Amino acid sequence: MTKLITACIGVGNIGRAWAMMFARAGHEVRLFDAKPGAVSAALDLMRQLLADQKALGLIDDVEATLARLKPAASLEAAVAGADYVQECVFEDLELKRRIFAALDRAAPDGAVLASSVSSIPVSQFMENLPGSRRCIGAHPINPPHVLPVVELIMSPSTAPETYDRAAAFLEGVGQVPVRVNKEIFGFVLNRLQFAIVNEALHLIERGYVSTEDVDKVLKYGLGRRWAVMGLFEAGHLNANGGIRDYYTKFGETIRGLMRELHHEPNPLGPALVDEIATALEETTPLDQVTARQAWRDRRLAALAQHLADLDSKVS
Amino acid sequence: MTKLITACIGVGNIGRAWAMMFARAGHEVRLFDAKPGAVSAALDLMRQLLADQKALGLIDDVEATLARLKPAASLEAAVAGADYVQECVFEDLELKRRIFAALDRAAPDGAVLASSVSSIPVSQFMENLPGSRRCIGAHPINPPHVLPVVELIMSPSTAPETYDRAAAFLEGVGQVPVRVNKEIFGFVLNRLQFAIVNEALHLIERGYVSTEDVDKVLKYGLGRRWAVMGLFEAGHLNANGGIRDYYTKFGETIRGLMRELHHEPNPLGPALVDEIATALEETTPLDQVTARQAWRDRRLAALAQHLADLDSKVS
Repeated sequence: MTKLITACIGVGNIGRAWAMMFARAGHEVRLFDAKPGAVSAALDLMRQLLADQKALGLIDDVEATLARLKPAASLEAAVAGADYVQECVFEDLELKRRIFAALDRAAPDGAVLASSVSSIPVSQFMENLPGSRRCIGAHPINPPHVLPVVELIMSPSTAPETYDRAAAFLEGVGQVPVRVNKEIFGFVLNRLQFAIVNEALHLIERGYVSTEDVDKVLKYGLGRRWAVMGLFEAGHLNANGGIRDYYTKFGETIRGLMRELHHEPNPLGPALVDEIATALEETTPLDQVTARQAWRDRRLAALAQHLADLDSKVS
Repeated sequence: MTKLITACIGVGNIGRAWAMMFARAGHEVRLFDAKPGAVSAALDLMRQLLADQKALGLIDDVEATLARLKPAASLEAAVAGADYVQECVFEDLELKRRIFAALDRAAPDGAVLASSVSSIPVSQFMENLPGSRRCIGAHPINPPHVLPVVELIMSPSTAPETYDRAAAFLEGVGQVPVRVNKEIFGFVLNRLQFAIVNEALHLIERGYVSTEDVDKVLKYGLGRRWAVMGLFEAGHLNANGGIRDYYTKFGETIRGLMRELHHEPNPLGPALVDEIATALEETTPLDQVTARQAWRDRRLAALAQHLADLDSKVS
């Protein structure tokens, strides 16, 4: 793989995650953050995080990876000669507008300018720039080094080749890009996620099921199924004639079920939040949340490794 | 564990799956099916299926397991002296009514009578029986030996101790019971499943995303996350102060997202079905569906083993 020059603008949680993935894949990564001292603090933290990743078998050589992470004195210095730039600043429209205008001025013509946006419609800060065709949204899921899907969001002026180049680069660092063809609130991942949350909240609020049991339905049922084959492939394998056959046989039942869903947004009121939080705090009290987060990351890393090992065999 | 006398009434796909799980756990399993020859055909098939499960490491001794599967000459003979009865007949209200009336007449007072119902409201065939308090729904997810969640559905007359006994028995055979406290169309699992399907259909139909990319969002993102920790624990670990903190910080964003969801049932029209099916058939043509089903079962078995191995360690 060609080694590229990349830049991460902003070195918070997401910026550090991208930087480590880019460096792990062999790319040079320039780091810039407007906050004084932020980059050197991030480098100290990444030394520890990369050691953790090595312990999980996700990385070979901590020092070689660290050596590719290079502090830059300014945004302009970070993107000089860059092939791929990942913006990772706070989710604030004015800030993103300012940063994208500066990136578009400073980055070479051939650079892809990607934003780690999580909900702002990308056109609001990518439009009206001379280089808007090379700008694209790139929304990761946390933690990105063990949950590899990344949403690439097309603004109305993003060029198709910008998608192709961003997707190829991100695949090269181990991510799985999906293409969000048009802007929509919440993009795709969060809309799917909160469709299920909305229905679950309704079922808990009305006393049909407990918080813990909703989690069991996912953990010991739907989540496992979808981790192996997604949503529609599961349907395709539910009938010997594939999904066409499945929708023919069960179409009326499925339509009936979709009509019966709770088609109203849940207000997420204080009593419901309290019920859910109390149930979760019983299993994981607040003083154990940090330890449980580390458990989560170890488990997701082990799961990623397990699934990758199977994919690499012809089974 | 106490070895019990169990019975499976109906030996189709689901009946065979239950029978193998009960026998694998050491229980005696009486098999009855109204269709002549069905039980002996099922026994032949189960010999093969158990050998497959042994190859996947899910079972130790095929012959010992088979020896616990005993054909019964009648429904009455099957349930004589039984502790736990699992009804697995076709999803037809009149048929289930007839079978439950017969089971309630023939089974000893202490037996639990569970139905593998998949969508019919359980009260419609469990009410007005002298023993309705010992009747309960037990809805598995396919394939049950590798996706262990089972929904236990309370009818208005189901006794709490019937839930406790059914749950204890099913846990003993390796299932993970969840309690559906009151009747609701689609129970819990399918409502959650079709909430996400409904939103996904909308996004595909309007051209926001492709079928393949929806599957990638689950397979490389949400499905993996939920396979490890479910829906609400994921939220609990998203902020250092747990889910209360998370809902406080992001409540407005989440409410906004839930308001923006497509709150209308998708009609699942022919053009959309054709688009989705065409995409899936490109990856898995119809003549490869059976082979891919076998791949699915191997993968889910390996995933179940991986997750169980990690659970058995203190990590």
